Amino acid sequence: MSFPQRLIDGYNAFTAGRLPSEQHRYRELAERGQHPEIMVIGCCDSRVSPEVIFDAGPGELLVIRNVGNLVPPHQPDGQYHGVSAALEFGVGVLAVKHIVVLGHAQCGGVKAFAEHAEPITPGDFIGHWMTLITPAAERIGPRDGLSMEEYRARLEKASILSSLDNLMTFPLLRRQVEAGALTLHGAYFGVARGELSVLDQASGEFRPVPARG
Amino acid sequence: MSFPQRLIDGYNAFTAGRLPSEQHRYRELAERGQHPEIMVIGCCDSRVSPEVIFDAGPGELLVIRNVGNLVPPHQPDGQYHGVSAALEFGVGVLAVKHIVVLGHAQCGGVKAFAEHAEPITPGDFIGHWMTLITPAAERIGPRDGLSMEEYRARLEKASILSSLDNLMTFPLLRRQVEAGALTLHGAYFGVARGELSVLDQASGEFRPVPARG
Amino acid sequence: MSFPQRLIDGYNAFTAGRLPSEQHRYRELAERGQHPEIMVIGCCDSRVSPEVIFDAGPGELLVIRNVGNLVPPHQPDGQYHGVSAALEFGVGVLAVKHIVVLGHAQCGGVKAFAEHAEPITPGDFIGHWMTLITPAAERIGPRDGLSMEEYRARLEKASILSSLDNLMTFPLLRRQVEAGALTLHGAYFGVARGELSVLDQASGEFRPVPARG
Amino acid sequence: MSFPQRLIDGYNAFTAGRLPSEQHRYRELAERGQHPEIMVIGCCDSRVSPEVIFDAGPGELLVIRNVGNLVPPHQPDGQYHGVSAALEFGVGVLAVKHIVVLGHAQCGGVKAFAEHAEPITPGDFIGHWMTLITPAAERIGPRDGLSMEEYRARLEKASILSSLDNLMTFPLLRRQVEAGALTLHGAYFGVARGELSVLDQASGEFRPVPARG
Repeated sequence: MSFPQRLIDGYNAFTAGRLPSEQHRYRELAERGQHPEIMVIGCCDSRVSPEVIFDAGPGELLVIRNVGNLVPPHQPDGQYHGVSAALEFGVGVLAVKHIVVLGHAQCGGVKAFAEHAEPITPGDFIGHWMTLITPAAERIGPRDGLSMEEYRARLEKASILSSLDNLMTFPLLRRQVEAGALTLHGAYFGVARGELSVLDQASGEFRPVPARG
Repeated sequence: MSFPQRLIDGYNAFTAGRLPSEQHRYRELAERGQHPEIMVIGCCDSRVSPEVIFDAGPGELLVIRNVGNLVPPHQPDGQYHGVSAALEFGVGVLAVKHIVVLGHAQCGGVKAFAEHAEPITPGDFIGHWMTLITPAAERIGPRDGLSMEEYRARLEKASILSSLDNLMTFPLLRRQVEAGALTLHGAYFGVARGELSVLDQASGEFRPVPARG
Repeated sequence: MSFPQRLIDGYNAFTAGRLPSEQHRYRELAERGQHPEIMVIGCCDSRVSPEVIFDAGPGELLVIRNVGNLVPPHQPDGQYHGVSAALEFGVGVLAVKHIVVLGHAQCGGVKAFAEHAEPITPGDFIGHWMTLITPAAERIGPRDGLSMEEYRARLEKASILSSLDNLMTFPLLRRQVEAGALTLHGAYFGVARGELSVLDQASGEFRPVPARG
Repeated sequence: MSFPQRLIDGYNAFTAGRLPSEQHRYRELAERGQHPEIMVIGCCDSRVSPEVIFDAGPGELLVIRNVGNLVPPHQPDGQYHGVSAALEFGVGVLAVKHIVVLGHAQCGGVKAFAEHAEPITPGDFIGHWMTLITPAAERIGPRDGLSMEEYRARLEKASILSSLDNLMTFPLLRRQVEAGALTLHGAYFGVARGELSVLDQASGEFRPVPARG
């Protein structure tokens, strides 16, 4: 079996460790279906697992992950729209109560955008995909005196705000938000120290989650 | 702060529990960047967290998740293609060695397809998105005498094969696969019992990972 | 058969000597394909064989060799670009982890450049090809009081740095290098004593590989 | 020192093993310069090292290697032409007596051509480079009933003939060949069994080098 041994070993650790205590929950979730209240839109980055950061058990978080934790704007054109399908599934079918856009430091997608790298494939999928943060770049203005690292951090945070804006372009979401049935949130994970900040939407600032005293 | 209390509590559990032992690793991953060898294409389903099932630590798995763990075919048309961007990032930039399409039982996306649900929004994003498994449906033929549950399970598995086919439509991936630099895998998670099966590509069958003796 | 007898004899020595012990490996490499982790860009010079200097077996080193171990800059103009094709093959298809630019002492190409030799053919292919080291020549400045031998040695080393710069003009390579998936190295072989130095990229100096104690 | 440990170890094996017995030869070659009589145009493939296959010592083989062991036709346009520069160096400067185009089985470049793979980078360097074997493909005609493996083997051999044709487009080479000062050869290495065949130019067939009795 050519399946990566690391995954076989990891799965065996799961079945020996976490599964027994959660077996009942998995069975129940299979029988009754999932009813997550929270949807997370995160990055594919290997350092930013929503279930790990939020210590979530089975059934708790509906999670979509793509390069840069981005949400394209509503575009009902009959093409394949993975994020839109997931939003429709989360909000329209499962009726989640919260959507969290979870950004993070050292994002490779934001880096690709910030440094205007040349296309690496003819399709230039990363390049096209990351143009989704152009509004975020316009929001924060030119780099000017900022170090590249600082500029990228600002862009990572501004991009969360843009994704939140784009979420509001979906009529189904907008209606539920306006009716108070759905709440949108932004959060930012600092990989180096494992620090989580959450967006204060009134000020547009990200504030660290205070340590539990 | 309106941020969901469940997430604040979960984050506090993370900082009190897992973070201290992994703090060094997070810092290193922030400084040196991520170098995952395995990419997982999973479903947004709240019961199927790749990091949980494979007991993965920070930096180990590059993870993209969408409804139905689907891969659209290569389509270099300058539109937003989230999965394609992630594949380009994983294979072209991070040079992962393995891609695993991780399907699962009781998939809501497959259910939506199998039961020909009516659109819930005018854009019908789920409907369009899930037409990606039409080739899988053709592969397994009509439902005939099968129970809906059995039919959906077959469709869930056939859809993994279709996604693997679609991965091979990306020239960069195809070349690396043919050269042996990249390997594609299929896996299927049975939510109820927490059972993992992996695809035997020679026979097209899914075989349970044997329990560690 | 007009084929050079020296090569027939050499091949017979190979089949009588090295081949039997490596036959299994050759067969395996034919069946499974090559998976070299290291690519060497060396000179065509008959005294500087990468497989000899690094005692490499079949399947270990992907090797391109040209006059002066040079890398032209990225130039996507649809012309024939042998080095670029090899880089695309090594990095894009075979996913090598390291690229080593291997320069050496007494390089005939560098000599041709340093001594401004007249063209020997109207096409003056050597002359045009070796203008690739003009940036290296500018880097080290005028010859001034240096002996021609010393000047050429400096040029040989500076040219390795220029080739490393040019490697970074290829988007696919640049992205992988920045992501840490690919590493670039410089090395210099002193033909007379068989001494190998490797480039310390922090200082730009070449340091001898210490003798094994 | 981040230099690949495999290469450090290999170099140490060289200095402990082969170097001592060849030290004198290296020193002489450094002082008196190289005078190889044979030039080999080989593939970058890690399984096909000319020095290994021909059991060659320092100073014996001038070697250029690129994807597919190809020779572009003479094109005196002032662009960078690595193969042409090497031919000019080998024939015009070092006056080699033989040029061997060394092809081989399971060639990745020929495979890329034969299977008409889509471009993997915007420059599509492999694709453009491998169009050099279009005349070889025309020479052997359509694939028809041949297996892909057999077709590729034919193409690999026909491509050697095309490269020999292209060598004759260089006026300097043509003159020397016609004057009997230079001889051109084709050879083909079967990786699996380590078998060498050489081209009989009268018949256009490749004949195995007979085993030494």
